[in-house]
Amino acid sequence: MPSRTYESFIARIKEIRAAQSVQELLEWDQQTYMPKKGAAYRAEQVGLIAGVAHDKLTSAELGRELAELEREGDGGDDAVATNVREMRRLYDRAVKLPTRLVQEIAKATAPASDTWVAARKDSNFALFAPHLEKLLTLKREVAERIGWQTEPYDALIDEFEPGARAAEIQTVFDALRRELAPLVTAITQAPRQPNTALLKRAAPVEKQAAFNRTIAAAMGFDFDAGRLDVSAHPFCTGLCPLDVRMTTRYDEHALGQSLFGVMHEAGHGLYEQGLDPAQVGTPMGTYASLGIHESQSRLWENQIGRSRPFWQHYFPKLQAEFPAWADVPLEDWHFAINTVRPSLIRVEADEVTYGLHIMLRFDLERQMLAGRLAVSDVPAAWNERMKQELGITPPNDAQGCLQDIHWSLGIFGYFPTYQLGNLYAAQFALAARRALPDLDGQLARGELRPLREWLRQNIHRHGRRYRAGELVQVVTGQELSHRPFIEYLRAKYQPLYGF
Amino acid sequence: MPSRTYESFIARIKEIRAAQSVQELLEWDQQTYMPKKGAAYRAEQVGLIAGVAHDKLTSAELGRELAELEREGDGGDDAVATNVREMRRLYDRAVKLPTRLVQEIAKATAPASDTWVAARKDSNFALFAPHLEKLLTLKREVAERIGWQTEPYDALIDEFEPGARAAEIQTVFDALRRELAPLVTAITQAPRQPNTALLKRAAPVEKQAAFNRTIAAAMGFDFDAGRLDVSAHPFCTGLCPLDVRMTTRYDEHALGQSLFGVMHEAGHGLYEQGLDPAQVGTPMGTYASLGIHESQSRLWENQIGRSRPFWQHYFPKLQAEFPAWADVPLEDWHFAINTVRPSLIRVEADEVTYGLHIMLRFDLERQMLAGRLAVSDVPAAWNERMKQELGITPPNDAQGCLQDIHWSLGIFGYFPTYQLGNLYAAQFALAARRALPDLDGQLARGELRPLREWLRQNIHRHGRRYRAGELVQVVTGQELSHRPFIEYLRAKYQPLYGF
Repeated sequence: MPSRTYESFIARIKEIRAAQSVQELLEWDQQTYMPKKGAAYRAEQVGLIAGVAHDKLTSAELGRELAELEREGDGGDDAVATNVREMRRLYDRAVKLPTRLVQEIAKATAPASDTWVAARKDSNFALFAPHLEKLLTLKREVAERIGWQTEPYDALIDEFEPGARAAEIQTVFDALRRELAPLVTAITQAPRQPNTALLKRAAPVEKQAAFNRTIAAAMGFDFDAGRLDVSAHPFCTGLCPLDVRMTTRYDEHALGQSLFGVMHEAGHGLYEQGLDPAQVGTPMGTYASLGIHESQSRLWENQIGRSRPFWQHYFPKLQAEFPAWADVPLEDWHFAINTVRPSLIRVEADEVTYGLHIMLRFDLERQMLAGRLAVSDVPAAWNERMKQELGITPPNDAQGCLQDIHWSLGIFGYFPTYQLGNLYAAQFALAARRALPDLDGQLARGELRPLREWLRQNIHRHGRRYRAGELVQVVTGQELSHRPFIEYLRAKYQPLYGF
Repeated sequence: MPSRTYESFIARIKEIRAAQSVQELLEWDQQTYMPKKGAAYRAEQVGLIAGVAHDKLTSAELGRELAELEREGDGGDDAVATNVREMRRLYDRAVKLPTRLVQEIAKATAPASDTWVAARKDSNFALFAPHLEKLLTLKREVAERIGWQTEPYDALIDEFEPGARAAEIQTVFDALRRELAPLVTAITQAPRQPNTALLKRAAPVEKQAAFNRTIAAAMGFDFDAGRLDVSAHPFCTGLCPLDVRMTTRYDEHALGQSLFGVMHEAGHGLYEQGLDPAQVGTPMGTYASLGIHESQSRLWENQIGRSRPFWQHYFPKLQAEFPAWADVPLEDWHFAINTVRPSLIRVEADEVTYGLHIMLRFDLERQMLAGRLAVSDVPAAWNERMKQELGITPPNDAQGCLQDIHWSLGIFGYFPTYQLGNLYAAQFALAARRALPDLDGQLARGELRPLREWLRQNIHRHGRRYRAGELVQVVTGQELSHRPFIEYLRAKYQPLYGF
């Protein structure tokens, strides 16, 4: 029997989430349908709603209710414990930041991201450097005010990956790097190489869109509770489990870009649709962390979407829809979609080299935040790491340290969650295979629902009950590890490349 | 030099409008792109934002600032005078209604509109009657709390048509009815009748959409500051002058429905885009009234879109796009798109008989509100008026008194604004012709921008500076009158029908 305080608390936090979801719709609309001249007024609308959400989150009433609920105790109820614990975390983070600081960051990011666009266009890091410096100073203050135990960076990661610690991530990343480096070398120097040209054959955009929808629907994405639209930068946003919106982009000569892009976003989308609708608007009805979110997208995009069994079923269907591939053997297709090649741009990287891009950013932003790397030294440090780990030197900063938007938005501590997603995906896939011994048979028959159902029951439905590290333990019996990922890569790429 | 109070007041009221515009986007999205299962959560989002707007509108700070600005005086500044006067009106209306009453109405309309859908489907008025009774009771209380001078209905009209009075509208409508009745009879009994079958030829929906966009753009609708989408019920919503969204619906065998529908909505859209961007979020940057809004849509839809000069230019273009009309003479097309025929359904009525539908509703809802017509007697009263004025008896209530959604939403006093729009449109068109003596020549050359510019300068840019009745006086030199409308109808329909 929930107390009256708990009932009032739940109603209050649902309003916070409703306001956030409205902000998400404003942002979705901005990326998809908003007429271009609407941008200035949209910023005012977003600012107003963000303010509403922030006022509700930092309200004295919420503070009082949290204190009272902590006194009452959770009575052994997991939902009560989770909701109080996680709202305490969000409340504390929010009230620790003075309005003045929040506004200064908002005021700094608008010109910073505008300048970043110009700087990237002209490959002029010096133009962007003062903005980066300013944002680092502000983010250092955020970290100090939030508080940290080992290093300031932890306070920033925590926003995206609750409870994660940079030092722990580093241990796993270091182990990963030791295994990845020789693997990349082996693949690069392997005698057999894929025919990547066959990925560039022409595929009408309309037919790509229809095919992608078929696959997302087969994965279990409910199009009565979600959408697929077009935007310049693909993303997925879940307003609630019954209204989940993903986007992609199309290129007639890059069928794979939209296809794997949609499987990736649909992985995110299934997570959002799989959250418990009875818990909507509360931490129990919210994704565990960005790393766990990314595990769902990566699992579908790579573990499934780039697997041979999946294409046993779907390649004949693709060939029927796109006769340009009629002459291509399944083996060649499967090899081509698993092309590994060190490259400059993170978002275009394959699943093997991707982690190297992330670890580079993780290290550099940690050093910058700690003041161990001067902003002016970032381009040289970036290029050195690229040379060292990927064997290539960016021809300019546009394709080097200016390629990502994150820093210009004041986002530090986000990058590691991408690679955590790859590691968690491999761990979850291993557990799923134990629970579904015939998974490959199911995939080969086009049966994607058993996996979706397993993910829903074992991951999605928990919401934020567990922190990411606990969740992987509960689901797989193991803590965060690089091993299942490396084993998955070896098992796939050794036979493909023949090394 | 605006006072500090005025500056604070402007910032405050812009927030109210920003919140309302967010609510409008939520509603636009619901009608266009929202996945169908998203409806329940959407209601929560809309409720939250409506609450934010209401709290800001009824805040004690706004009340204090209004009082202070009224003491300060407007210093002869029209914008100050308008913004203070109109916000006073909105503030007073809002604070006079207790939260309990607002919530009761919100709670009553949800089941009322659900029941209305079911009642209309089964043509079962008895099912809907108790809900109508309940809403009337609540709306009577609204009228009493708002206050009125001559009759309670005035307090309700005022929400849509600030300052309008039912008795004054009735005087004009009575004069109109005396002229309309014989005109309808003359048209119905005329020897010549149009070939309406030619309107039903097949026109691919995609090509309709492209043609409609061309016409809206030629009217001056800026597609970088607006959109055209599809929804079941066409509408137009202006989030701000740089983000205006209209919708239409398509039927392969009803080219005219979407074409005139888009010209109608684009008329609304041009009004929204024509508001002063420097006054966004204030009454000076807001449309004058719903009647004036409707005058802009009706002017473009009927005075222009159903005129002969317009089609001199556009019919050859239509024939080039839609070869199904290649054999149709311009005269036959122009006659067909001006078909007048008494019919059952308001939204499908032609511009001549339309007013009769409105006057019927105006009279019945006024009588209902005053308690002079019992809810149970509505179907009989409706059918009797239909028989008397349009010469037809609805075969059932679905096509009679259950056809419109308005009452089920608790909206009383809205209907007259539709017909006021027709009358204002004729008055404005007359003034425009005086200012643009070559208007017909311009139309025949496809030059729609001079009229758009005249409307912008003479009507749109005033925002809410004038009440509707004053605006028509300022623009045309005459007060609200039925005469220009009747003269326009006679001048068009006598030669067409040859009576």
